[in-house]
Amino acid sequence: MPLNTLGYAAQSATSDLAPFRFERRDPRPDDVVIDILYCGVCHSDLHTARNDWGWTSYPIVPGHEIIGRVREVGAQVTRFKTGDAVGVGCMVDSCRHCKPCDKGEEQYCKEGSTFTYGGQDRHDHTPTQGGYSDQIVVSDRFVLKVPEGMDLKGAAPLLCAGITTWSPLRHWKVGKGSQVAVVGLGGLGHMGLKLAKALGAEVTLFTRSKGKEADARRLGADHIVLSTDPAQMAAVSDRFDLIVDTVPYIHDLNPYLPSLTTDGTLVLVGYLGGLEPLLNTTPMVLGRKSVAGSLIGGTKETQEMLDFCGEHGIVSDVEVIGVQEINAAYGRLLKSDVKYRFVLDLASLKG
Amino acid sequence: MPLNTLGYAAQSATSDLAPFRFERRDPRPDDVVIDILYCGVCHSDLHTARNDWGWTSYPIVPGHEIIGRVREVGAQVTRFKTGDAVGVGCMVDSCRHCKPCDKGEEQYCKEGSTFTYGGQDRHDHTPTQGGYSDQIVVSDRFVLKVPEGMDLKGAAPLLCAGITTWSPLRHWKVGKGSQVAVVGLGGLGHMGLKLAKALGAEVTLFTRSKGKEADARRLGADHIVLSTDPAQMAAVSDRFDLIVDTVPYIHDLNPYLPSLTTDGTLVLVGYLGGLEPLLNTTPMVLGRKSVAGSLIGGTKETQEMLDFCGEHGIVSDVEVIGVQEINAAYGRLLKSDVKYRFVLDLASLKG
Ligand SMILES: [Zn+2]
Ligand SMILES: [Zn+2]
Ligand SMILES: [Zn+2]
Ligand SMILES: [Zn+2]
Repeated sequence: MPLNTLGYAAQSATSDLAPFRFERRDPRPDDVVIDILYCGVCHSDLHTARNDWGWTSYPIVPGHEIIGRVREVGAQVTRFKTGDAVGVGCMVDSCRHCKPCDKGEEQYCKEGSTFTYGGQDRHDHTPTQGGYSDQIVVSDRFVLKVPEGMDLKGAAPLLCAGITTWSPLRHWKVGKGSQVAVVGLGGLGHMGLKLAKALGAEVTLFTRSKGKEADARRLGADHIVLSTDPAQMAAVSDRFDLIVDTVPYIHDLNPYLPSLTTDGTLVLVGYLGGLEPLLNTTPMVLGRKSVAGSLIGGTKETQEMLDFCGEHGIVSDVEVIGVQEINAAYGRLLKSDVKYRFVLDLASLKG
Repeated sequence: MPLNTLGYAAQSATSDLAPFRFERRDPRPDDVVIDILYCGVCHSDLHTARNDWGWTSYPIVPGHEIIGRVREVGAQVTRFKTGDAVGVGCMVDSCRHCKPCDKGEEQYCKEGSTFTYGGQDRHDHTPTQGGYSDQIVVSDRFVLKVPEGMDLKGAAPLLCAGITTWSPLRHWKVGKGSQVAVVGLGGLGHMGLKLAKALGAEVTLFTRSKGKEADARRLGADHIVLSTDPAQMAAVSDRFDLIVDTVPYIHDLNPYLPSLTTDGTLVLVGYLGGLEPLLNTTPMVLGRKSVAGSLIGGTKETQEMLDFCGEHGIVSDVEVIGVQEINAAYGRLLKSDVKYRFVLDLASLKG
């Protein structure tokens, strides 16, 4: 029987999110039914709710930083049992047979992965709906184990903000001795600092605003560089093996390229669009430097990241809010007025 | 005693190259004195002669694809002896103690390598002059061994065109099973096809002009794709591990990015400047693709490349000309009217 579900949905690009009743599918043999406890609030949620990317179908229930407890499992499910603390991130399915899927990098699925919300179920073609809701039904492959004892509120943002920074850190082999810089101190950036530091790197924050020093150091930054100060920028010339650029809007990459060392990479994790001002290739050619992109992370790396965070006592810094506060939270998100991630407490749905 | 040398020099940005007498340094204990036999004609020669990059000091003797025979060696030189066939490429010195230099990647020397022409000797600060001349004096570290039996005319372009394409092929680990594309069929591009094919890759040429099919196949291309044909471009979507882009002028990279597969890299080896139209990061983020640059190659890789070419019977396709024809050759170079590299026969200097 389909599951009667309560969530918060946008009914149009201009309407506030409001209570919405919808059905989750009748669980299949490989499904895990999850009572949602917490859900992080990602910039993508806001962009999707407001149709900034032009592909939103309404009504839409956002949310892809989901933490909950298993209520029941299908007959084929062996990795989970009732009561387990689990997570669901940005994807709930993929083709499962292409090369990236075989490697557990379903975010690069050749047929396109199924997003947690705004996607379409691969079997019954119903729209997928996200974690601003009281329950979700997800195929076991896309359900992650939350390590024993981890703070569940702080764990939620690991499912998107955490894995989005973890994946490039791992792909570009950051470890002891690495010089890593993070551009931007928001939801992604603060996780980038924590994870790079825990991986053993020497960590620098690039920021455009003063006054972030104390917070950045607490989060793991060894150095803070004001990117608006040419002298500070010159002082880090030829320094970084990897720059993780978390800025979600158009910005100039050219000032950062000289701070990469030979063979260094600047990886964009937040910005889709044209690079303006024009990207100048000169430092890239003269120093074999790369500009790359990276998209969230697959199930394999996400589980690895959660386990790593469990071992190192890492969670996100969060501000927990009731689901009724989501529209105000979106307003504050646009002003970067959150340290560093809003997390919805879904118990508030019953309030 | 300084060596009285005859070459061809530009005296200004607008004057033709003409005979020019100058002195090479009195050989030092680590120097190799080389009678120059052949010198390839590179686009950089022309750009430097005409001060297109704004850093030329006149008079300038271009040429950095130098093949010759050892006439004498300094007391400390053990790797070479009189009569050896040798090569000199784009660099004649570097700091020799930084990390790239330690790896034999002197092109990325932290103090800047000394270019074969237009540079400044690190000891006596005299200007360096290139291979459009009858002899050159070079420190042994920057002298390459030409494999036994290699055609010396065809070997000359290996020192710049060859190594410039070889280095990214090796750095990005091209081998059997790799899917490689080369953009542009000029001096660099034709070497890219030959080397990628010999390394075991399946090789595609991207070209904007029809009629290159037969030549491209002869040079090693398995496939030819007209980059102006959207249907042909769509057919190679998600294909290449590496695209070596040899185009030396501003051009749109965006059409090529979809043809990279996940984790693929487009490497620029010929173009320094702004990327216009705007580089769109969307395919980079969605497929973890990179845009990178690569600069010539160091002594270690250059020797490796020469040895590889010796084993595989690879040299450049050349049109041998007398040094008196250089100005006409520059005119043809600007129209890409050469298959695929002009090589000066320096015996013509005595004519
Ligand atoms: Zn997200
Ligand atoms: Zn797949
Ligand atoms: Zn050259
Ligand atoms: Zn050096």
